[in-house]
Amino acid sequence: MPEYSIGLDLGGTNLRAAAIDRAGDVLEKVSGSTPFSEGRDAVLAEMVQSISALRDRLGSAGLAGIGIGVPGFILIREGIIRNSNNLPFLEDFPIRDEIERRLSTSVVLENDANAAALGEKWRGAGREVDDLVLLTLGTGIGGGIISGGRVIRGFAGMAGEVGHLTVVPNGNPCGCGSQGCVEKHASATAVTAMARLMQLGESLSAKDIYDLAHRADEAGHKARQIWRVMGEALGLTLALLINTFNFPLYLLGGGMLPAWEFFAPSMLRTVDARSATYRLTKPSTRIDVATLGNEAGLYGAARLPWVETRNR
Amino acid sequence: MPEYSIGLDLGGTNLRAAAIDRAGDVLEKVSGSTPFSEGRDAVLAEMVQSISALRDRLGSAGLAGIGIGVPGFILIREGIIRNSNNLPFLEDFPIRDEIERRLSTSVVLENDANAAALGEKWRGAGREVDDLVLLTLGTGIGGGIISGGRVIRGFAGMAGEVGHLTVVPNGNPCGCGSQGCVEKHASATAVTAMARLMQLGESLSAKDIYDLAHRADEAGHKARQIWRVMGEALGLTLALLINTFNFPLYLLGGGMLPAWEFFAPSMLRTVDARSATYRLTKPSTRIDVATLGNEAGLYGAARLPWVETRNR
Repeated sequence: MPEYSIGLDLGGTNLRAAAIDRAGDVLEKVSGSTPFSEGRDAVLAEMVQSISALRDRLGSAGLAGIGIGVPGFILIREGIIRNSNNLPFLEDFPIRDEIERRLSTSVVLENDANAAALGEKWRGAGREVDDLVLLTLGTGIGGGIISGGRVIRGFAGMAGEVGHLTVVPNGNPCGCGSQGCVEKHASATAVTAMARLMQLGESLSAKDIYDLAHRADEAGHKARQIWRVMGEALGLTLALLINTFNFPLYLLGGGMLPAWEFFAPSMLRTVDARSATYRLTKPSTRIDVATLGNEAGLYGAARLPWVETRNR
Repeated sequence: MPEYSIGLDLGGTNLRAAAIDRAGDVLEKVSGSTPFSEGRDAVLAEMVQSISALRDRLGSAGLAGIGIGVPGFILIREGIIRNSNNLPFLEDFPIRDEIERRLSTSVVLENDANAAALGEKWRGAGREVDDLVLLTLGTGIGGGIISGGRVIRGFAGMAGEVGHLTVVPNGNPCGCGSQGCVEKHASATAVTAMARLMQLGESLSAKDIYDLAHRADEAGHKARQIWRVMGEALGLTLALLINTFNFPLYLLGGGMLPAWEFFAPSMLRTVDARSATYRLTKPSTRIDVATLGNEAGLYGAARLPWVETRNR
């Protein structure tokens, strides 16, 4: 029996788990079915049951460890979710210790965006490098930073909060207490808010605005303008990261990626204008598309037990 | 004879070198006397001569290595200064290999701001942590990032270019090609430019503006306003770094530090407003004053041979 680990990805509405071997090949995979609306006990039971099912099928002997990716701020040492907009019922509860107790084995907890970055480094678009930043563009903007093959998480697990980097000092207010965070100017939520401001429609989705951008009429023009402005905000963020890290790779993932053709030109122009480091190293500094999609977090969660041994 | 290393700090106008033991105690120290205006050959000769003098006094047997901090972009693998405003005559010259050849020993080259950060971590205000960012506020703004006790330098040695983080998207133009870089809004040069704009005087130094800020009259009011605006730009930069790294310590060094009393209040207010991570972790996230002053780069240069073994 080869050595394997189990990764569990706790999404906003459901969970998935996979047993993955050391080479990164998926051995078995399960998806949860319990609606998260049923609350903490139901979700915890399903997490434990999914992991147990995989362990039963593959045997305890080869199990290297268990990694869990969850959305929100994690207190790594304590194994607690400090704050999670999607899973408020799991906040300030000793989730790691409780799952360890029920499974009688050790668990590594990680923020889902950090786990996704680790997954892309392991098996995705970052396989060739040891250092990368992943930005996930969805309803919000999350990020994960990998340096020397390991997650930079900061002493309270809050590193990589790139969605809250200021790109418009007097810009839109943000729930974090600041204003002009890139998440308020380049996320799906931001794009749909811009569509309302442009009187394109009250309830357009980012996908609708992407579709609109193909049209030759006035609405198409406005939609392309929105993507251009979104690209500029994203470009400013990338320039900040490139000037800070000088890493070889910056990956973009998430549901906004299909609109790449519309936001990438202004994004890359902005990075060029804002970062001498980018201009000087351009062929070697790459801004590219993440390739694992929703699987990134699952791979990254499974990778955790092999790279994180000292986080408590 | 105890093990020691030799650190050499190449400033903008002169050089210093020290032999330092593993505990960080200075054994011997020399200062150069050759004016840098005499050009490359004279500076190279003085570098070699300073290092040789220390090695002769302490003996080759205990020498662990030689580290050199230089201002400018370093191509680490190649051992070349790619770009240096202060030492243009050393650009694109194989300085590391040439010094190694003349001394018949190996040399580690590093950017001076990175070396200073390493020095503060080793023997200065960062002794208690493994992760910190140092911002050096002078005529420009430099930075160094230490993660896990080692410099984050990026694949081309350009990491930590925090002086070029955008804080005012439509702000002052910068030599790097961008505009609104913090270095154009919070350095000594920026402060003196603001004094001109405020019609305080055509040739005031940062020190003059600091002295003015103590006065109760209109000029004092204007000077305090300048420091307040400078503090806001710096605060925005710190918020970007805190949101990115969640490190426990951010140090400020350089010639502007005496004005701390005037810029720190607006700086800390801005960090508070811009970083939820700071607000949530405030007692443990510290923004503080570097303690080694001009010695930081010398200590850091001497530390290099012990922490950097794989940089070519």
